[in-house]
Amino acid sequence: MRFQGKKLTVQVFGQSHAAAIGAVIDGLPAGMNIDREALQAFLNRRAPGQGAYATARKEADMPEFLSGLVEDVTCGAPVCAVIRNGDARSSDYEQFRQVPRPSHADWPATVRYGAHYDIRGGGPFSGRLTAPLCVAGGIALQMLKARGVRIGAHIASVGHAADEAFDPAGVSAAEFDRIAGNGFPTLRREAGEAILAEIEAARQDGDSVGGTVECAAIGLPAGLGGPLFEGLESALASALFAIPAVRGVEVGTGFAAAAMRGSAHNDPWVFREGRVKTETNHAGGIVGGMTTGMPLILRAAFKPTPSIRRQQRSVNLATGDETDMIIHGRHDPCVVPRAVPVVEAVTALVLLDELMSGEQP
Amino acid sequence: MRFQGKKLTVQVFGQSHAAAIGAVIDGLPAGMNIDREALQAFLNRRAPGQGAYATARKEADMPEFLSGLVEDVTCGAPVCAVIRNGDARSSDYEQFRQVPRPSHADWPATVRYGAHYDIRGGGPFSGRLTAPLCVAGGIALQMLKARGVRIGAHIASVGHAADEAFDPAGVSAAEFDRIAGNGFPTLRREAGEAILAEIEAARQDGDSVGGTVECAAIGLPAGLGGPLFEGLESALASALFAIPAVRGVEVGTGFAAAAMRGSAHNDPWVFREGRVKTETNHAGGIVGGMTTGMPLILRAAFKPTPSIRRQQRSVNLATGDETDMIIHGRHDPCVVPRAVPVVEAVTALVLLDELMSGEQP
Amino acid sequence: MRFQGKKLTVQVFGQSHAAAIGAVIDGLPAGMNIDREALQAFLNRRAPGQGAYATARKEADMPEFLSGLVEDVTCGAPVCAVIRNGDARSSDYEQFRQVPRPSHADWPATVRYGAHYDIRGGGPFSGRLTAPLCVAGGIALQMLKARGVRIGAHIASVGHAADEAFDPAGVSAAEFDRIAGNGFPTLRREAGEAILAEIEAARQDGDSVGGTVECAAIGLPAGLGGPLFEGLESALASALFAIPAVRGVEVGTGFAAAAMRGSAHNDPWVFREGRVKTETNHAGGIVGGMTTGMPLILRAAFKPTPSIRRQQRSVNLATGDETDMIIHGRHDPCVVPRAVPVVEAVTALVLLDELMSGEQP
Amino acid sequence: MRFQGKKLTVQVFGQSHAAAIGAVIDGLPAGMNIDREALQAFLNRRAPGQGAYATARKEADMPEFLSGLVEDVTCGAPVCAVIRNGDARSSDYEQFRQVPRPSHADWPATVRYGAHYDIRGGGPFSGRLTAPLCVAGGIALQMLKARGVRIGAHIASVGHAADEAFDPAGVSAAEFDRIAGNGFPTLRREAGEAILAEIEAARQDGDSVGGTVECAAIGLPAGLGGPLFEGLESALASALFAIPAVRGVEVGTGFAAAAMRGSAHNDPWVFREGRVKTETNHAGGIVGGMTTGMPLILRAAFKPTPSIRRQQRSVNLATGDETDMIIHGRHDPCVVPRAVPVVEAVTALVLLDELMSGEQP
Repeated sequence: MRFQGKKLTVQVFGQSHAAAIGAVIDGLPAGMNIDREALQAFLNRRAPGQGAYATARKEADMPEFLSGLVEDVTCGAPVCAVIRNGDARSSDYEQFRQVPRPSHADWPATVRYGAHYDIRGGGPFSGRLTAPLCVAGGIALQMLKARGVRIGAHIASVGHAADEAFDPAGVSAAEFDRIAGNGFPTLRREAGEAILAEIEAARQDGDSVGGTVECAAIGLPAGLGGPLFEGLESALASALFAIPAVRGVEVGTGFAAAAMRGSAHNDPWVFREGRVKTETNHAGGIVGGMTTGMPLILRAAFKPTPSIRRQQRSVNLATGDETDMIIHGRHDPCVVPRAVPVVEAVTALVLLDELMSGEQP
Repeated sequence: MRFQGKKLTVQVFGQSHAAAIGAVIDGLPAGMNIDREALQAFLNRRAPGQGAYATARKEADMPEFLSGLVEDVTCGAPVCAVIRNGDARSSDYEQFRQVPRPSHADWPATVRYGAHYDIRGGGPFSGRLTAPLCVAGGIALQMLKARGVRIGAHIASVGHAADEAFDPAGVSAAEFDRIAGNGFPTLRREAGEAILAEIEAARQDGDSVGGTVECAAIGLPAGLGGPLFEGLESALASALFAIPAVRGVEVGTGFAAAAMRGSAHNDPWVFREGRVKTETNHAGGIVGGMTTGMPLILRAAFKPTPSIRRQQRSVNLATGDETDMIIHGRHDPCVVPRAVPVVEAVTALVLLDELMSGEQP
Repeated sequence: MRFQGKKLTVQVFGQSHAAAIGAVIDGLPAGMNIDREALQAFLNRRAPGQGAYATARKEADMPEFLSGLVEDVTCGAPVCAVIRNGDARSSDYEQFRQVPRPSHADWPATVRYGAHYDIRGGGPFSGRLTAPLCVAGGIALQMLKARGVRIGAHIASVGHAADEAFDPAGVSAAEFDRIAGNGFPTLRREAGEAILAEIEAARQDGDSVGGTVECAAIGLPAGLGGPLFEGLESALASALFAIPAVRGVEVGTGFAAAAMRGSAHNDPWVFREGRVKTETNHAGGIVGGMTTGMPLILRAAFKPTPSIRRQQRSVNLATGDETDMIIHGRHDPCVVPRAVPVVEAVTALVLLDELMSGEQP
Repeated sequence: MRFQGKKLTVQVFGQSHAAAIGAVIDGLPAGMNIDREALQAFLNRRAPGQGAYATARKEADMPEFLSGLVEDVTCGAPVCAVIRNGDARSSDYEQFRQVPRPSHADWPATVRYGAHYDIRGGGPFSGRLTAPLCVAGGIALQMLKARGVRIGAHIASVGHAADEAFDPAGVSAAEFDRIAGNGFPTLRREAGEAILAEIEAARQDGDSVGGTVECAAIGLPAGLGGPLFEGLESALASALFAIPAVRGVEVGTGFAAAAMRGSAHNDPWVFREGRVKTETNHAGGIVGGMTTGMPLILRAAFKPTPSIRRQQRSVNLATGDETDMIIHGRHDPCVVPRAVPVVEAVTALVLLDELMSGEQP
């Protein structure tokens, strides 16, 4: 459960119903002031409770920092951030050892870890583990900002409702600020309403729905990354697929590139304000595994959360019978809105790591 | 330029016009016989020359094994495989230092490595570097087969021509053998013809075209992988994005999942022949980052190769002018047919590594 | 600050005067019961306060486990252990930024981390950071014991007082239990008294004194390790040198081997109770980087702790003058007695990791 | 069989009687000219044949560079260096599968790798594998020299004959040049003669003898390394123990520190030519795991080579009998003279890696 960059490591720990979850961030430079307020604001974007457009949200848990900071300034030692878990009804989960929930980790985790797997709340497979990722990523975002790199993401689609896309050749920091400041992370307000309607419809059906998140990074220098396994896409995709429920990752035109001709896809090199740029940016800012200096554009696809309030089929591992089951409790009908800052967070971890180790090899 | 698994490492080396390219494969178990004929047949699937359906192909370069094998049996020491490069007209490439080709690595590589970057033939960014990957992956495929795991891939689409998809719940080794035995790697013969027509049309236009490869693996045990960054998708995507020209990776339903409801996407657990299976396999064999034992299904999107015979715009870095350029020489109008065994190869590396280290953590 | 094994990772965090110190242990198998009482007893061996032979010791801090354990049984998720730091007079340390203590980390750490280095109590360079190592190592020792592997260490020497050495061909678990049960970790009681006298003499002189720790492991299978950088000595030495104040590590006859002839040093292979053994064990259980199945024997040398109550010379970085300084406060005149369990702990981490990943490569 | 630094990787391959041995060096900066003549001179120092003081030596094998260099300048791609093995009488070694040589890897390697272990010439455990280490290290030495860092080593002792030690506070590059230019790598000529006499005496007795190598590095900046497992000693010791026959590693005063008082061992900080230095250098240039900028001093102990021409006892694994054996063929009675450049080589790899990644974390 560790993001292993070249210089930066984020060791995540915790289970959904353990005493705590958290992360140890090793490899941060010393002397960087953490803006707690900005970090809290970032974590709040992941907090539950977006029932309607622009409603007040719950405050996210603020982590306790056990080490690595002296009066909010990094000292070079690893930063340990801890988020205590509240009380939870853990006993409800024991039944899933015997009758695993469809498309949940219950069964493969039991195969992997055996009878002592902590199934309560989904154990280490819970989406709750993205909270410490956001702590680490939120700090990385601040460090990137200090280096002139900004990252922003929005909901690109949920079900059949879609937002417009970033302009790959012209996305701006102002756009990121506008989205983050929105009650709901879309570029167009009407798209946000359609998306909320899509989520609400799923909720009313006792169902869930998937979606996609688009993320951009600007201010990156050219030449980060490298050939084959050193390619920046590999590092990004590895981190993005670590987010629970991600089923696909694409860069630039992504899967759409498969239907294109080279003459349409190639991005001509041009000079803009004396610097080498590309006129278009189908590459999404990465050519040959390396940054071009143009905006980095990527998208991640999220499956519909498997927790639905409908009768489903499963097996009873104790009796050997097939059986019906219903999952109770409240669950997000769509993880995508809360996933937006998580996508930003892991993208930030990768990019900060690359920047810190990006000098000539 | 190194595949870094948990137990298995493949250190690739070489540039397109260096004396040689190759790979050192470290971590293979001792005592495994390499079937050279089968390996050659696998490498031949990546060889150039598929001008028409089922035409005779060129023989691929056979690697020389410098170490790690004693009479074709692994001895536990690292296996070094070397493929000599033939003569090539390297001088043609010097101009691209000054006028970089659109959507090629020329410019970002120059930023990264400076004036001494080996631009000849694309240096380490050349698709030729996938040959040593196929040597390593071809060996991994044999080791997987001995463990009951089979991998197969086919062209899912090129441009607007598409093959049918694998049946995610029922793909079989016989199907893999049939595709590999085909002159052209599609499931349906007519799809192959349409795809070849799409490629031929691009060629005649002096253009190129992108496509997608679908890959499946069967025979995997449940429980490989783990939470967050230990997820199997992360390892797979990281390796697949290392293949030049890959712009997207998806598992199971992938991006299509984003438009689905949970009630449609969830895969019910069932018993089949006394074993736990899923009735459907939208998950593509991975839930919670772990294998379910169902067929693993993934797809990779390839962009159209940037080498086209058309006039393009670029910049002259020496003069500071924008300029027109034409790239001469013969180039594949579509890398996708030759990419099929490459996708199998890197998938095999990841899965063999996971299997070898997949015992309870 | 991370022990990076092949399967096992221990991410240490904390500074001497931070809110807490601790460790996240990732890669432990699920289903293993942690004996808290035995762990506490192990940690107590590192606790301060051995003023005299067999006196009552202080209780060591017991860690709080935030994750990875469910009712003291590992669940497969990372184990996070936290030890809170008590109040400390941190302001005393600020002066050392300006006038660094001789042979302390003050100055090189300031070069490395800059003005924001947490100098209080030695920051992350404090010997206090060996406490979380002992938590991780104490758990590893329990897991090794369940696999039939036992580890024990004793003070081999302090200053000019020496204990006798382990019998390299015949050390036993009973001996380990006897040492650990002693009030003072020596093989011979009289040696313990001489060593305590040596320490007491240093203390009375306001001085400190160095020493050596000898460690043995029994019950290891043959064949762990490998050639060159895979050698077991590399992993052991890397971990042992991570202990503050270690200046040398040797295996088997170690430096004494440099003065020996091969005819005296070679260990003949023999059969004992039907198994291959060596008659002598100058190798200390490792030949060719691999275990032989004989007891593993190693020694680590510790320098005298640099904190002494005598006037010393240093520089004033602010004024550019050379100056005299005196370090106040209580300090161990010899770290060696408390280092004994630390040596066992890091040895256990290495050996458990090797065992867990020691199957044929 | 891989040196795994933070930026630099050296993947060694080959067995003593394979087609070749070699190394792939990944992570070198582009644009560095390799001085082939200097490299050859360095490799010659490891070549066999030092029968007498200052005799002409054999030329070492010169590696063929397959990749990574364009006209002897690094291009940023991995450098693959191959050294072909000549013909060797491999059949002589088969007997050692059945009757393993004492203190050789024969038996533990058979346990580890099984019947397919390549026992010919010692397989991957042969001292011959230090040749590719010297190629990589020889290149690293050139890169360090360009950065102002110099490394030199000498024979500190063989058997009971000893050279004088480096002056830890005053070793100079001129001294390194003098040693490397010597026919025999000692500081004092008379010590060289005594050491050669010691080796010759062992040879005449059909025996072998051990020894120690002392190595120094100058020109290092302060602040390389870090706390606990980031300590520079850990990286150095791990690499040094990878050299076959090394049984001990110490830094600065090393094991002698164990008998010292702190008041004698502490190194006062002083100003010299406006820079912070230590007056003495018992630390050997490393305090708190970090460089102080003073000369780095380390020693490695080598056991007597196990190949002796005397009757020895072993076991016959096929019959279950204990037996006598004699090892025929020519073997170095002492590996220490040829180990001197190997110690320099691995030290160079570690220090270059630290320098390249040594910027603030």
